[in-house]
Amino acid sequence: MNRADIAIVGAGPAGISAALNAKIRNKSVILFGNGDLSRKVELSKLISNYPGLPEISGKELNEKFKAHLDKAGVGITDEKITGIYKRGGRFILLADLKEFEADCVILATGAESLKPVEGEREFLGRGVSFCATCDGNLFKGKTIAVSCDCPEEEAEAVYLSEIAQRVYYFPSFKSSLERENIIKPHSGIKAVCGQNRVEEIKLKNGDKIKVDGVFFLKQSAAADILLSKLETENGRIIVDREMKTNIDGCFAAGDCTGAPYQIAKAVGEGNVALHSALAYLSKIGKNQ
Amino acid sequence: MNRADIAIVGAGPAGISAALNAKIRNKSVILFGNGDLSRKVELSKLISNYPGLPEISGKELNEKFKAHLDKAGVGITDEKITGIYKRGGRFILLADLKEFEADCVILATGAESLKPVEGEREFLGRGVSFCATCDGNLFKGKTIAVSCDCPEEEAEAVYLSEIAQRVYYFPSFKSSLERENIIKPHSGIKAVCGQNRVEEIKLKNGDKIKVDGVFFLKQSAAADILLSKLETENGRIIVDREMKTNIDGCFAAGDCTGAPYQIAKAVGEGNVALHSALAYLSKIGKNQ
Repeated sequence: MNRADIAIVGAGPAGISAALNAKIRNKSVILFGNGDLSRKVELSKLISNYPGLPEISGKELNEKFKAHLDKAGVGITDEKITGIYKRGGRFILLADLKEFEADCVILATGAESLKPVEGEREFLGRGVSFCATCDGNLFKGKTIAVSCDCPEEEAEAVYLSEIAQRVYYFPSFKSSLERENIIKPHSGIKAVCGQNRVEEIKLKNGDKIKVDGVFFLKQSAAADILLSKLETENGRIIVDREMKTNIDGCFAAGDCTGAPYQIAKAVGEGNVALHSALAYLSKIGKNQ
Repeated sequence: MNRADIAIVGAGPAGISAALNAKIRNKSVILFGNGDLSRKVELSKLISNYPGLPEISGKELNEKFKAHLDKAGVGITDEKITGIYKRGGRFILLADLKEFEADCVILATGAESLKPVEGEREFLGRGVSFCATCDGNLFKGKTIAVSCDCPEEEAEAVYLSEIAQRVYYFPSFKSSLERENIIKPHSGIKAVCGQNRVEEIKLKNGDKIKVDGVFFLKQSAAADILLSKLETENGRIIVDREMKTNIDGCFAAGDCTGAPYQIAKAVGEGNVALHSALAYLSKIGKNQ
């Protein structure tokens, strides 16, 4: 299915909560995400404040979420959305090789992808890239830095190491990736620097490394890069009490709207966002 | 314990969520409510959209909530709060015969108590009362109407029927209460009417009944009667994204802040309200 009433970007607690409610309300829904659900939840050792499920591990909670989605008949579309735009009052969602269409969108992309490094935004297109497939070839035989925020994206890093001469690799997880031309510094990237385009990166320990380019491999793009003109503040999507963003028909829920970064909060916001989406669908005269 | 960092009024999903987080964050907390938790949840036949617990009955969910509170060591203080005011920067909470004190307050009183009948507010103290113990004796030998929103309050109705000559009784639940001087009309109260004080009630079916007074027996008083100057709109407490009300140190969460009236939404707001309360405690220099 490439077209639905509601597209939900992100299958963490907020996206799951929204999707379950969409299903109950008989709306067609595409839930984009990782089949393994939220990695952040998965890695939580012990969750004590999700009411009704005391002292549960993140792994167990994700299993319960998955069972709930299965029971409700909600599938997960394992596509990484790389861009969203509005055309003729509808939203077009771009994945690697596919296009999806929806009347409204709920962004539930999490918080991690939303903390840009200093210079990351500034040098986008001038040495900074979010897409190995798109821009990898520009760095043939060159020296690049590659930041990677999840194991699912590591294949992109491997691909880049086949093209570039040297790769400084910064995985945000325990990675066993080893290649002759891959160097793993012990400190993270603090800033991307240069005059007109990327010239070097500064690490948190103060070291500087000369590079021709920097790739940020993320499970989801920053929300305002995903959807241009989306208003954010300190990297968080600005929403009102109804989880409306500044773009009509676009809602947001969960960590991407800011603190507290809590499962209960995300689940609540996903619920509210979906109900606001229903009101929006009704307003535009769809699916009554 | 009559004094705590945080007082939470209402032990439904929002109050429970707030209390669990307070405990985790090592704050002292008094959770006011019914030991049986939310009656609204209890009466839900099937809940399909509380993520992680698919197709659960309200009764089962309340049991899970109770087990969670027990595991976390959160007790419920079974007192009906009848008034709240601020004194010297702290909140004083009044129960029938006791007084409690807290640095901040989270209102999680639910939605039901917040829909006043036409005239209910207007004639408060002029024939309308919320408290049988306080005002019952004023209606000795008279004809009164008694609205009762939960079985726990029915004992008050019995008490009133021992004082008044005739009682028109409007329980919002299936009541087996029978007495010679109790009449149960088949239609509900639509409005309380009179010139300077209560003279009659209008029923939803158009009937009018002459009465000397009207008692509204509620599990919790309307929020803005509970706490004067609290800003509400259409009976809902006005809050911002951080669940702050217009009164510094007073937060609100759950159905009392408005639609959607959903467990997930309440649980999320309770979580947010507690985190805002923590920030408030820190701001006033308490319990660092």
